[in-house]
Amino acid sequence: MMNKTRGRGRPAGRTETRSDILAVARRRFLAVGYDGVTMRGVAEEAGVDSALISYHFGSKRGLFGAAMALAANPAEILVRELDGPLESLPDRLVRAVLSAWDGPDSSGSLRTFLEAALREAEVARAFREMMEREMIPRIADRLGGADARHRASLAMSQIAGLVIARYIIGVEPLASMPVDEVVRRVSPALRTALAGRPRRAHNDRW
Amino acid sequence: MMNKTRGRGRPAGRTETRSDILAVARRRFLAVGYDGVTMRGVAEEAGVDSALISYHFGSKRGLFGAAMALAANPAEILVRELDGPLESLPDRLVRAVLSAWDGPDSSGSLRTFLEAALREAEVARAFREMMEREMIPRIADRLGGADARHRASLAMSQIAGLVIARYIIGVEPLASMPVDEVVRRVSPALRTALAGRPRRAHNDRW
Repeated sequence: MMNKTRGRGRPAGRTETRSDILAVARRRFLAVGYDGVTMRGVAEEAGVDSALISYHFGSKRGLFGAAMALAANPAEILVRELDGPLESLPDRLVRAVLSAWDGPDSSGSLRTFLEAALREAEVARAFREMMEREMIPRIADRLGGADARHRASLAMSQIAGLVIARYIIGVEPLASMPVDEVVRRVSPALRTALAGRPRRAHNDRW
Repeated sequence: MMNKTRGRGRPAGRTETRSDILAVARRRFLAVGYDGVTMRGVAEEAGVDSALISYHFGSKRGLFGAAMALAANPAEILVRELDGPLESLPDRLVRAVLSAWDGPDSSGSLRTFLEAALREAEVARAFREMMEREMIPRIADRLGGADARHRASLAMSQIAGLVIARYIIGVEPLASMPVDEVVRRVSPALRTALAGRPRRAHNDRW
């Protein structure tokens, strides 16, 4: 109901309009979940043209990240890495996640968001739906194969476990392991999860 | 300072004494962490003989689980599975974790505890220290090898990720996957984490 008196299609870039859009988006994401929000609905309530939302935030995924005040948007990080070669995807994914969580600008907002998702049912729902709509299907498309969504969800759970063990709980020796070592150690298991099959060497004691 | 008037070495099995011990233990675990608590210190404060604590709870690990009101104690589950053959360890670990989290008696207390660990710094510290003292070294001993603690901590992070994705966030398709399918899908990656090396098949596109 805010901004009733404003015209539609105001000039882009006005701080007030942008923050109005974000306030509406945040409230709606938490009220009705990721799936329930439309760009058009947010535009109507904020009293702006929906093209302005696209202009500012690119996509619903981008709007979500901005509304949650995420300096590093998990879905955007993922999509960016999916463009590269499959062979190096596990390495690149682990490195990108660590880079965001170690980054001075982004780690605070990521921690705040994840802690909220683990504590508040509304944030958990929005995050879960965002993963189910924006992250898991995109990984699955890149992987291909009948059970790609199952493998993608398993890979996501591994990345979640890495983040929580290293950054939220802080378990040693994982918490103070150098980035290159984490990448080297985590990638093989992530590769197995993405590929979806065991790899047995001939001289293997397992 | 409670129970000053009581004698030491009271008969085992008295509900009041047991709950007194647990109240003291819980407060101390949260105040000084897992490492800072001794059986003797809890015994003294509760006004009982430390042999009575051993009698009731077996070990500090057992005391921790009871103090945290855990119907299924994560460290006990783990230690039990480590006794079996290494070959089937990944399968058995995943199945034991799911069984505890799906169990009608245990899932509530596990969820309450994990949510507290993700929310409250004191619970997180006690849990982290318990993992670092009781879980990771025991897995590492069973695995053997120079970097066994690193592999064990990575394996623990995978299990944490599975639990959080499936039971706390509830991400599909992982959340409603049948137990046998979770075991079949998660075990290969857990095996890779525990073994600490990639396994490349000859005809592998990765």
